Amino acid sequence: MKRDLDRLMEAHHLDAILVSGHVSGNAPLYYLVNGVPLTRAKVVKRLGEEPHLIVSPMERELAEVVGYPIILETRYGYRELLQEHGGDLLAAAVAYYHRIFDDLGVKGRVGCYGLHDQGASYVLLKALDENLPDVEIVGELGTTLMDEVRATKSADEVARIRAVGRRTVEIVRRVVDFLRAHTVGDDETLRRADGAVLTVDDVHRYIRHLLAQQGLIAPIGFIFSTGRDAGIPHNQGTLEAPIRLGESIVFDIYPCESDGGYFFDMTRTFCLGYAPEAVRRIHRDVLDALRYVQACLAAGEPARRYQQMTSDFLRARGHPTTADDPQTLRGYVHTLGHGLGLDIHEAPFFSDTPDNTTILKPGHVFTTEPGLYYPDEGYGCRLEDVIWIDEEGTVHNLTDYPYDLVIPMD
Amino acid sequence: MKRDLDRLMEAHHLDAILVSGHVSGNAPLYYLVNGVPLTRAKVVKRLGEEPHLIVSPMERELAEVVGYPIILETRYGYRELLQEHGGDLLAAAVAYYHRIFDDLGVKGRVGCYGLHDQGASYVLLKALDENLPDVEIVGELGTTLMDEVRATKSADEVARIRAVGRRTVEIVRRVVDFLRAHTVGDDETLRRADGAVLTVDDVHRYIRHLLAQQGLIAPIGFIFSTGRDAGIPHNQGTLEAPIRLGESIVFDIYPCESDGGYFFDMTRTFCLGYAPEAVRRIHRDVLDALRYVQACLAAGEPARRYQQMTSDFLRARGHPTTADDPQTLRGYVHTLGHGLGLDIHEAPFFSDTPDNTTILKPGHVFTTEPGLYYPDEGYGCRLEDVIWIDEEGTVHNLTDYPYDLVIPMD
Repeated sequence: MKRDLDRLMEAHHLDAILVSGHVSGNAPLYYLVNGVPLTRAKVVKRLGEEPHLIVSPMERELAEVVGYPIILETRYGYRELLQEHGGDLLAAAVAYYHRIFDDLGVKGRVGCYGLHDQGASYVLLKALDENLPDVEIVGELGTTLMDEVRATKSADEVARIRAVGRRTVEIVRRVVDFLRAHTVGDDETLRRADGAVLTVDDVHRYIRHLLAQQGLIAPIGFIFSTGRDAGIPHNQGTLEAPIRLGESIVFDIYPCESDGGYFFDMTRTFCLGYAPEAVRRIHRDVLDALRYVQACLAAGEPARRYQQMTSDFLRARGHPTTADDPQTLRGYVHTLGHGLGLDIHEAPFFSDTPDNTTILKPGHVFTTEPGLYYPDEGYGCRLEDVIWIDEEGTVHNLTDYPYDLVIPMD
Repeated sequence: MKRDLDRLMEAHHLDAILVSGHVSGNAPLYYLVNGVPLTRAKVVKRLGEEPHLIVSPMERELAEVVGYPIILETRYGYRELLQEHGGDLLAAAVAYYHRIFDDLGVKGRVGCYGLHDQGASYVLLKALDENLPDVEIVGELGTTLMDEVRATKSADEVARIRAVGRRTVEIVRRVVDFLRAHTVGDDETLRRADGAVLTVDDVHRYIRHLLAQQGLIAPIGFIFSTGRDAGIPHNQGTLEAPIRLGESIVFDIYPCESDGGYFFDMTRTFCLGYAPEAVRRIHRDVLDALRYVQACLAAGEPARRYQQMTSDFLRARGHPTTADDPQTLRGYVHTLGHGLGLDIHEAPFFSDTPDNTTILKPGHVFTTEPGLYYPDEGYGCRLEDVIWIDEEGTVHNLTDYPYDLVIPMD
């Protein structure tokens, strides 16, 4: 949470932070400017002091909504510096940051965050580190300071995620109603009113319509895939595939607020009419794993423990796992879940690797999503809920939707 | 265009490129993977050779659609390297890239592109540059190689931008119809069927509905702002403001394809019922400037010349410009336009600065959008079209919508 920023800056030995770039699609900056839709911005904050917001004069009024002291970027005269340095972008940029840091009293270890072109970041920060005498530029791999701050959600953020969740659940409910409203042909395919076979494409269109109706967008798509496609975790579905009784359908939907804010993320696996024994078996194993792991979730525990727990559980049920064979494409082949918020994948992460020192904490919002995949056998199953650990450490499941495998077609 | 990649790599003295990160929202990578909705990917290409695509095993089938040789990232064993290096992320990452570059024969000058956390990029690329003996890491400020490649559009890309354009024009048309369908109260405010005053918020909701209906999303919002708000370029509009006769309304809409693909961008300025003399005057000046500049556009000319031309034109009409006073917030306060494609703002740029050596070329798609702003007087005006220079150098206006200032309310 934002209130942890100074404490975490101290823990990361930082005297100041610079968070910059475009606001849209740039979670750490969007977060610090409270979602105000500026085009570009720089937030500069010294340890123990209020953040300053540097913006274009064109956006000064929008910027006022953020609530930080505002500096118009023209004050630092980049244009004039560029003239002075004969169009040398790097020299002008170094002089520009020199002015900003001098003006705001920034010195010591400066952590830099926000999405930028990788190569440009390297060239710029290297030059700042080498040329600004009082400044040491700090970059962080893995979970950064800003990732840590954002990983624990405030009441306000949880309310927004919950609201997206309610609308997402409503979409899943309506998709199920939509499927059930179809008739079934002799070949067990679903049929539209015009007699044509209902395809994955038809369902995708309907999902898009529902997203718009609920005021949500799916900037990275969604998964509604059947049969063999459902046996591959990120296969979004073959558009021309028919919807057929008895096939496993994985429906994974991860929309966000319409201007690009908070995400939700849930998955259910269905079979229409009836489920073959093998699909019933993996659905039962996944659901048992989900319930087992969810029952064990507690603040204070290492996140990677839950990945181990899930692998152990599914191995005991006879499935291959990447814990035993990192290359396997069958069985349990991904991690248990991921934090979510302004990014669909953010801290906390659950990977069982030595660098993952994450401890579950109050404020964490994350998915739990065990899955089993057998592409060659033509099926897969994943079940995914969003979990929130509140301030008191109580674990809440924010996904109010049943796990039923079989959708009766009557 | 993609076919220019090798030629431009030579011009930039690059032996190889690495384009990486998340695919969604990361234009250079989205571009190279042809919009296939992978989660993360690395594209590695040596000069004169085919690109290789490195992906997660979970996304191998999706990856096949891209059409490049595929390498599963597990081949390079990051997980094992992390164990070996006792959880040291940087050491493991260096060893990992060492394996990738060795395997693919990458050496010499390697240009790195794609959106990543700024600080992380710095730390990683510095370590690669220092530790990989045969590799020199290259970063570019300003317009990079990938920006240059993307700046000229193929026929296929132009077709997609045009299709978004047609749908955007349809939205503008329907918003105008929507406004005209309202009655006018004695106080000159528009009234809804229930007698309440029509507000900017009502219009914003209707625009959102139309976007969804047209299968477009507005990930960075849109501008529908009135009166004083219209006098500030990026003011998106005060939601509770009433819609009133005779006030200038700036409507700037920049949506993209629903899964985050190509953008369009257009602006019109309206007054409902009648326009005050001062607004008529600035609308005429902006429209004259737009027509003058558009008539002069030609492949082979420096882009910055058109910014100078616009400033000269509007200065001659008696308006302040940032060319004369970089700090002015009145008059002509921004640049003429920007390229558009997978990013709403991309090369070519029109800023009149010494670093801007851009020459207009066949394939360029960009906006021309002169504007005049007088916030203290309570009005502003901007008119914006999308322009395409085809292979033969012919200049096309892709925005088929009239410039009329006054919308009659009959």
